[in-house]
Amino acid sequence: MATTHGGEILIILILALLSKAISIRARHQIINDPSSSINPSFCFSWRLGVEVNNVLPWSTVPIHCLQYIEDYMIHGQYEQDLELIMEQALKYMNGIVLYGDGMDAWVIDVDDTCLSNVFYYKSKRYGCDPYDPVAFRAWALKGWCTAIPSVLDLFNKLIDQGFKLILLTGRDQDIFHQVTIQNLHNQGFIGYERLIMRSAAYKGESGVKYKSSMRKQLEDEGYRIWGNLGDQWSDLQGYSSGNRTFKLPNPMYFVP
Amino acid sequence: MATTHGGEILIILILALLSKAISIRARHQIINDPSSSINPSFCFSWRLGVEVNNVLPWSTVPIHCLQYIEDYMIHGQYEQDLELIMEQALKYMNGIVLYGDGMDAWVIDVDDTCLSNVFYYKSKRYGCDPYDPVAFRAWALKGWCTAIPSVLDLFNKLIDQGFKLILLTGRDQDIFHQVTIQNLHNQGFIGYERLIMRSAAYKGESGVKYKSSMRKQLEDEGYRIWGNLGDQWSDLQGYSSGNRTFKLPNPMYFVP
Repeated sequence: MATTHGGEILIILILALLSKAISIRARHQIINDPSSSINPSFCFSWRLGVEVNNVLPWSTVPIHCLQYIEDYMIHGQYEQDLELIMEQALKYMNGIVLYGDGMDAWVIDVDDTCLSNVFYYKSKRYGCDPYDPVAFRAWALKGWCTAIPSVLDLFNKLIDQGFKLILLTGRDQDIFHQVTIQNLHNQGFIGYERLIMRSAAYKGESGVKYKSSMRKQLEDEGYRIWGNLGDQWSDLQGYSSGNRTFKLPNPMYFVP
Repeated sequence: MATTHGGEILIILILALLSKAISIRARHQIINDPSSSINPSFCFSWRLGVEVNNVLPWSTVPIHCLQYIEDYMIHGQYEQDLELIMEQALKYMNGIVLYGDGMDAWVIDVDDTCLSNVFYYKSKRYGCDPYDPVAFRAWALKGWCTAIPSVLDLFNKLIDQGFKLILLTGRDQDIFHQVTIQNLHNQGFIGYERLIMRSAAYKGESGVKYKSSMRKQLEDEGYRIWGNLGDQWSDLQGYSSGNRTFKLPNPMYFVP
């Protein structure tokens, strides 16, 4: 009987382990497995389509990709993707011979390039909820955005190397001027050359047109735009885009 | 004793199941899990970096991403990614009001856009081995490339809709002219307007420059390039790129 009881206990133990292994695997499948019945491979394809700019325009993340996008944003892969891009940018930077006349520039976007809005977007189900200008304005006015560490690291290295950094944001100057300066400062973005914000003249203009105009003005002033960093294709497309562009990931929202 | 024996058999059965579940999970982790110890999350980031054109130029797939890229290419995700892109292209196509003067065009690349070289690249470890012009030439001269089904489907729908399809390839005209025409035909690519191949005048020219020149000539002839499909950024960048571009995935090789 002792053997039988021991066998039963062992069976229960093994069943518990098996159940755990299967549940871990099941959760894993939901997030990562193309063959899973809820078809997250669609979400893989959707995110790639968004990042490569094949899917456009888009207003919200497909609701069945919420779990996948949340997992992507907060469980390390987003940071890992950013780090690889920053390594590429650094490698490119190290190969540039500067003119050294104070006109060697990089253009860098602010939201979700320097400063992260992931905390805010968590409350908007990582982009599954539609864009909410009132709530976003209230969030941005708090000045609580956090630095994206790998971008801050590149930012500092670019300054050390002698580049002039131009921060170019679609944020409305009348509303966000002071808070943006403070938020950048309290997150360590110190020593940039200029912060360009959207003036009344460009209100309602698309990101591509507004940012192209601003970059063209920089070139007209004599700046050479060596690099251009942004999480939206509208940061990088249009004209005067810069000698090389770097698209940072952002599967949460789309700015035309 | 019967109970004890039954218990032992059950234990063995459960152990076998557990072992299977764990081995499936382990294989799964190697391919898909960012937290896995062999760090495939780097390969995720690398592939995204390549597809988004942040990583450039690059000559070979990192060797420790071989398993990941093989899995991506042959276990369904590549096809799924292509299908989503073709759906986007179709949606865009359906919204176009044609001029109907015979000058509404799409430009489409050939290798790994219409015709797949995955079978060849399998022998080159999906791009982990360096580019081998002699072997690729021998492969392409066989005319054994297979149609990419979702692209062929779009191809046919574009023709049905009344668009003129211009196939624009970097393949050398002197070497591959006849075999390319035959390979396209035997794979069902029938009814296109023109096949433009690289003439002696453009030998050694970068893909961006050669393809931009060809597209500019098409525009000079009066064609409106509504869409432009290619697996390389050099198919889509430069000038006269078309009203909308679609980047097809290709993590196996890079053409400047």
